[in-house]
This record gives sequence, structure tokens and C-alpha cells, in this order.
Amino acid sequence: MFRGRQPVKTSVTRVYGGQVAAQALVAAQRTVAADRHVHSAHVYFILGGDPSIPIVYDVEDVRDGGSFTTRRVAARQHGEIIFYMTASFQIREDGWDHQEPMPAVPGPQECPSLISAIAGDNAAAAQMWEQEWASLDMRYIGYHRSADERDSTPGSQRLWFRANGALDEDPVMHTSVLAYFSDLTLLASALAPHGVSIYSDHVQPASLDHVIWFHRPVRVDDWLLYDQCSPSASGARGLAFGRIFDHAGTLVATVAQEGLIRPVTHRPTPHGVRSDN
Amino acid sequence: MFRGRQPVKTSVTRVYGGQVAAQALVAAQRTVAADRHVHSAHVYFILGGDPSIPIVYDVEDVRDGGSFTTRRVAARQHGEIIFYMTASFQIREDGWDHQEPMPAVPGPQECPSLISAIAGDNAAAAQMWEQEWASLDMRYIGYHRSADERDSTPGSQRLWFRANGALDEDPVMHTSVLAYFSDLTLLASALAPHGVSIYSDHVQPASLDHVIWFHRPVRVDDWLLYDQCSPSASGARGLAFGRIFDHAGTLVATVAQEGLIRPVTHRPTPHGVRSDN
Repeated sequence: MFRGRQPVKTSVTRVYGGQVAAQALVAAQRTVAADRHVHSAHVYFILGGDPSIPIVYDVEDVRDGGSFTTRRVAARQHGEIIFYMTASFQIREDGWDHQEPMPAVPGPQECPSLISAIAGDNAAAAQMWEQEWASLDMRYIGYHRSADERDSTPGSQRLWFRANGALDEDPVMHTSVLAYFSDLTLLASALAPHGVSIYSDHVQPASLDHVIWFHRPVRVDDWLLYDQCSPSASGARGLAFGRIFDHAGTLVATVAQEGLIRPVTHRPTPHGVRSDN
Repeated sequence: MFRGRQPVKTSVTRVYGGQVAAQALVAAQRTVAADRHVHSAHVYFILGGDPSIPIVYDVEDVRDGGSFTTRRVAARQHGEIIFYMTASFQIREDGWDHQEPMPAVPGPQECPSLISAIAGDNAAAAQMWEQEWASLDMRYIGYHRSADERDSTPGSQRLWFRANGALDEDPVMHTSVLAYFSDLTLLASALAPHGVSIYSDHVQPASLDHVIWFHRPVRVDDWLLYDQCSPSASGARGLAFGRIFDHAGTLVATVAQEGLIRPVTHRPTPHGVRSDN
């Protein structure tokens, strides 16, 4: 069992989901041999977390096999389960290799900060984001629709991000920060095809599930491209896929998330935090 | 707790993963109010199942919220957990709607049976498939690579499938049969870019995880298109995405799976079954 620290200063009334995913991943990894690296983590967000008390992470040793290790993590507060994660770890192995190519996009230095893009939709939300995610440098590339309508997705959203400052070599740090970041902005891509900003007061958003497949080693203190698209929205839910490339064009991770995108006349909870559903 | 029946006649030495996923989904749904429908299920395959004894499904009531219900299912045999599933259910809600368009493909009547396509790679494997999955009619469309290299995936594999015979209206039956089918053929798309058949003796394949997002109501006794692609392979693993469309072009589900695709000189286990890893 592990106890996760909460941010000393925060304005959110419910814990950011990416924080819980990152802390759960660190907890799981600490029960796994160092030569076994995370290759996937599947998450369900069950209840909003309370930022005023620590979160307890209960790691279950599911299996230690010849090449793979499986762990489950239950995150608890106030005697209730707020979050479940199952993660799988593997020794290094060789095999066939391929990846989707990185799309051609403007570099991070040519793109405005994500905060300034959010400010155009909702100034209060932008202020909250600036305080909560000061540890990340995020640049907004924009919304993209393929010219080839035949094969096109309903649209995609792209941004650059990196940690604000250098991190040490520990791969667990880098995969965990990737998990931390990956829950931010992704669900917004499910509303992009409708010209609706997820930062507006007309949507009640909440992450429902979250998956990360870690394909190749990653450094989060160098620029990463987060290329997001939404194959479907229905039933007040949106599905979003994200591809994370490093600056050299290597696909380091794939992310998937389904979220609640419920139309409301007035948003019932503060921006960027999970609400009850 | 529920006990799942095994097929009366089977030649596999380990239980087919899609069977476990389908039975787990039925078990979970039986603990959920009938007006709450499954919208996602995340699965990890932990150990190969023994087809000679029943599988016990232990359903945990994680949460019954205002709109969403969460369940976890542990599948056990011989006192060990062989499989974990977390699934989420929701009341019907309205909201924004979009989907990726169905690709233009030949109709099922113009396509050869999947069994005959497999027979070209491995006659013994085809014979096993014909016996084990006689309940499904599967037609192979083929391997497709987009002409637009800029945005293209490394390749895709497409097939049509439907249940052999009419089923009653119960939506639980249809979502469960979809889960049953969805673990078949998907991982093969991760080897398609390399010109390697997953039915050959040079690959040790195994499903590691599996996700299904159910977007819209589905009938599995009418033709469904399973459009598969693989965004990445590395570390002896392949990631595959599948989109399932009905005959009218409605996107009914999205599937994702990471699997072991380990190069071997001689396959250690019978075809189509999970091996230890």
C-alpha cells in the first residue's frame, strides 16, 4: 500500500484524474522488478477524488510470469474506491516493428500556448489551468480536418507538450509524467467536430476510462506531439484517441479515452475536474 | 458468482479469450438494471483457461451511480484468476453525435470465407477454425493500404462477419456475441504490414488486453464490417484497432487490443489459443 501526496496548492475541488493515474502507475511499478517496463495501463475513474486528504493506492500482485507481470491498483479515499487501474509490465523483447508516421505540423516555437487558446473560450478556465498545470509547457497547434474525406476522421486536435524543466533518467518518472499529462485536453477532441469548446459552460465533461499503450522509451522533458482524434460520439459520451510522438517522429505511446460530454445549460462543477455522474 | 458453460466439443487446449470476455459480460450485465447498457469493457487476459472445467465469474458491484454503473469481473479456475474485466453501463442519454465514415468495400457475398483465406496460410489452422467457430459466418475482404502515404496507417485488414442464424431481440445477447467475435482475427492486422501470417508456425500470438467501446445498438445476426488497423508494433507486441460497422454504415463499436506477436522458429502451442508468456 502506498500513500500519494496531494499538491500543496490547488484550486480544484476534485483531484485531477491524470494525477491519480500517474501515482497509481508509480505505486504499481514499485512492486515490479526494474527490468520489467510498463507497456499498458487501463483505468476507470469511479468517483471524484478529494484533494484535501492523501489517496491510498492498494496494489494487488496479480501475476509474475516468465516475461510479463500484471498489477491491479485500487485508489481509495474515505473508505471508498475512487479509481481502478490494471497495468502490465514486460521484459525487453525484440520483434517486428512498425508505426504510423508523424503528421507534418508546425514546430512548438511557432505555436501559441494552450493557455492562451483556452482563454479565448473561457478566461476563468484559462486562469485555473495556468495555476494547476504550471509544471507543463503546452503549445496549441489547432484543429485539423483531413482533405481526404473518404478516409478522414471527423477531425483531430493537436498540441505539443513537455515538462517545464529537466528530469532525471529514471524511466518510471517519464512514463508516469506521460500518464499525468495524457488525461489533459484529450476529451476536447470529441467536441471539436461540433465547434463546441470543452472549456465552455455548456458541457459537463468527465473522463470515464483511460488507456495508455507505451510503445517505446520516452523522455517527457523534450517536446512531444499529442495528435488526437475522435472516431465517435453518441449517448452523451465521446471516444478520443491520442498518438504521442517524440520530436524525432517516433511513436512513443497511444492513448484512448471515453468521456462524458453531457450537454448542460450551466456547468455544475469547476473546470477541469471530474464531477459525479 | 456465475458459472460459465464450456463448449461441449472443442479441440482447443486453452479457452478462447473471446468466450471468456463474452461470458464475463453476460455475468456483469445480470447484476445491472435492464435500462443500463454496456458502453465499455476493458479486459486483461492473465492465464490460459482450461476448457475441461467451467469458469467461475465473480462480479464485484463497484458502483451504482445516478447515470453510470461500474462492475468488475474476475474469472477463476483451479483457484487462480485467469482474467479480469471492468465494464461500465449507462442509462440512455442524448448528446452530440458523430462517427468515422464506413470505408468503401466489396459486399460479403463477393468475398471468400475467412476459413479459405486461412487455409492458404495453414491448412491445419483452417480446419481448427472451421470446427471451433462454426457459429460465425466470416468473409475475408483482404489487406488494404491507403494510397495516401502521408496520413496512412501501416495497413489494415478487413472482414465481414455475422452469427450463423437468427438471434432474439435481447441486446445483452448481441453485445456479448460482439465481444465473443471481437477477439478473433484482430491481432493478425499487426502482422499484416510485415507480410507475415499470424496463422503461420513462426509466430507465438496471444491476446494481452482487450477493450470494446459500444457506441450504438447492434445486431450480430446481420452482416458487420470489422475494419482493423495496427498503429504500432514493437517489443514483440502489436497494437490493433478495430472499427465495427453495421451494413448501413453505422459505427456500432470500436475495439482495441494489444497482443504478443513473438517471433519463434516453431510455434509452441496449438493455433488460436493463448499460450503462457
